[in-house]
Amino acid sequence: MHVLHMNTGEGETSYAKNSQLQKKIISVGSSMVESAIFSIMLEVQPKSMGVADLGCSSGPNSLTAVSKIIHTVNVVSQQIGLSVPELRVSLNDLPGNDFNDVFKSLPELYNKMKKDYGIEDCYVWGLPGSFYGSLFPAQSLHFVHSSSSLHWLSQVPLGLKPKAGTHLNKEKLYLSKSSSMTVVRAYQQQFHEDFSLFLKSRAKEMVSKGRMVLSFLGRRSPNPCADEACYQWELLGNALMSLTLDGLLEKEKIDAFNAPYYAPSLEEVAREVEYDGSFVVDGAETFEIEWDDGDKSDFNISSGYRVAKTIRAVVEPMLESHFDLGTELMDELFRRYTKIIDDCLSKTKLKYINLVISFMRNE
Amino acid sequence: MHVLHMNTGEGETSYAKNSQLQKKIISVGSSMVESAIFSIMLEVQPKSMGVADLGCSSGPNSLTAVSKIIHTVNVVSQQIGLSVPELRVSLNDLPGNDFNDVFKSLPELYNKMKKDYGIEDCYVWGLPGSFYGSLFPAQSLHFVHSSSSLHWLSQVPLGLKPKAGTHLNKEKLYLSKSSSMTVVRAYQQQFHEDFSLFLKSRAKEMVSKGRMVLSFLGRRSPNPCADEACYQWELLGNALMSLTLDGLLEKEKIDAFNAPYYAPSLEEVAREVEYDGSFVVDGAETFEIEWDDGDKSDFNISSGYRVAKTIRAVVEPMLESHFDLGTELMDELFRRYTKIIDDCLSKTKLKYINLVISFMRNE
Repeated sequence: MHVLHMNTGEGETSYAKNSQLQKKIISVGSSMVESAIFSIMLEVQPKSMGVADLGCSSGPNSLTAVSKIIHTVNVVSQQIGLSVPELRVSLNDLPGNDFNDVFKSLPELYNKMKKDYGIEDCYVWGLPGSFYGSLFPAQSLHFVHSSSSLHWLSQVPLGLKPKAGTHLNKEKLYLSKSSSMTVVRAYQQQFHEDFSLFLKSRAKEMVSKGRMVLSFLGRRSPNPCADEACYQWELLGNALMSLTLDGLLEKEKIDAFNAPYYAPSLEEVAREVEYDGSFVVDGAETFEIEWDDGDKSDFNISSGYRVAKTIRAVVEPMLESHFDLGTELMDELFRRYTKIIDDCLSKTKLKYINLVISFMRNE
Repeated sequence: MHVLHMNTGEGETSYAKNSQLQKKIISVGSSMVESAIFSIMLEVQPKSMGVADLGCSSGPNSLTAVSKIIHTVNVVSQQIGLSVPELRVSLNDLPGNDFNDVFKSLPELYNKMKKDYGIEDCYVWGLPGSFYGSLFPAQSLHFVHSSSSLHWLSQVPLGLKPKAGTHLNKEKLYLSKSSSMTVVRAYQQQFHEDFSLFLKSRAKEMVSKGRMVLSFLGRRSPNPCADEACYQWELLGNALMSLTLDGLLEKEKIDAFNAPYYAPSLEEVAREVEYDGSFVVDGAETFEIEWDDGDKSDFNISSGYRVAKTIRAVVEPMLESHFDLGTELMDELFRRYTKIIDDCLSKTKLKYINLVISFMRNE
């Protein structure tokens, strides 16, 4: 899974330049973050508070969540009349993440905290590793946050390994209206294994009455193959298939690709929480986020272009490692993807469904 | 101080390829590390042990010290008949350090610990920031290690600011036999300020009876201008001056440069420890390290070449930022430096003095 990282650097196709959507998603979760922190401060009153942001990524959003969290702890402490706790903050992502970029902005964060809030007793670490497994010492965390990360699985579903040389999910990159039950079950099983391991790991690491706010792409429909859960992959698959039709890409390569991704429903998440038994769901909301939620002031740039660029910044390393397209064909792929998205958006508004869920660690 | 980092990447002049000397220095300190850990395990018996490596750098040495420390904790625990404590390890360096490179090797370290020692309860973070100041929460560390880092000052001595436009340390990069008392005092004062702040910060962060093993370049002579403390800078200064004589570099640039470096004596360190009052010196050794301590099997490569490359990997970012030489002139500088070193080594053996000191945090 070393290919699961965003486009690096600060160029035109970088995640740093194309992550406004993810910033928006952090902001829609912020009221739930505030009330979770309020509950911790009121009920646990920690003198030293362990905070983790899982899947912090790099670029301008990497410190957005923790800045907000530190600020909120400060404000809430004053409201309740407690002194601000010592803050131990860990920024987590996979080892391939650009932590150098994240660390570059830390001195500025420290300065801001000191100048704006008078906070000196705050320590920010980077912690590389997969959140599907143990990351932190036992009972060391009071608040866990993660945004736009948990829709990524730990791996391509094991149940999708080719049977007798035949690929199970032909012409598609993810679930689709035409997916067989075998394919659907393979995705559901991988989600179950990953999410249950995630909960088990965090349960061990969090203190009693600790809180966790997770925000990720999901769906409202009970059907895992509903458009709202799959359509961005469906259209990207169409763009890849059009390269095949023009003889620019082997079809077999598309047949062999399956995204390590799953967009669950609230009910599926609730089922995992019940199965695990260590958490209570404290609050849950679904938000619709328009595919093109960016800056529309430049009329020369189409919506499809912005949407395709946002997705490219996230999936390009994964696509490049599997399809080995090279720069020119990758550009061509995203030109076609842009056109396909523009065609769709001219007929209908397309939206992602974003879930924000707040959990409390049982006593 | 963003220029205080080693040469990046893995090329011919990179620190990754030219840090055998620093590896050797880590190894000469290892018996003191072992006995420090033995004392901690015996006297403190921590269930959860906080470990920090300050100035971990990048490249092949970045995990050498912590691997050794983790291994030693494991062995000592078994000897004493204690269960291995939970290990919270922080790798520290300045924010400009190549942490991505360090993190790349972490999965391998975790695997090795698990397979070779059966250690699962170990957590390794990166913590960017200057060790001249607060880095960690209060009383969170049991063992602090640092190798080949503390000879770097936090900044060029403030006392060397040009007076009435006149530079105080002309034609020299560091202390030298011809240095005035003003220059000597400026370096001593900066060392005092930095080292006392270092001790004060660590004292707050370490538990009672915690241990600290520091290894850095120093001197045996009471004279801060003795050759053993300065000669590598003296010769590098000569190489730069030869560029000036050939009209390739302004002399004023050399006059304006002062290395943020200080090679103290054991007595000077002991004075700081006494002044601070929170530590006891538990043991101290000085080691002579030959300038050319590398692989001498290739007869086509001169000793001077190896020595110059080792130094280049460390000081190039600092030189480039001040002198703005560009690649060709930088290469020329180090060709001349190589020749000067070879000439010297043909007449006499040159040695660095490395101090290794073990400290105990007072009760």
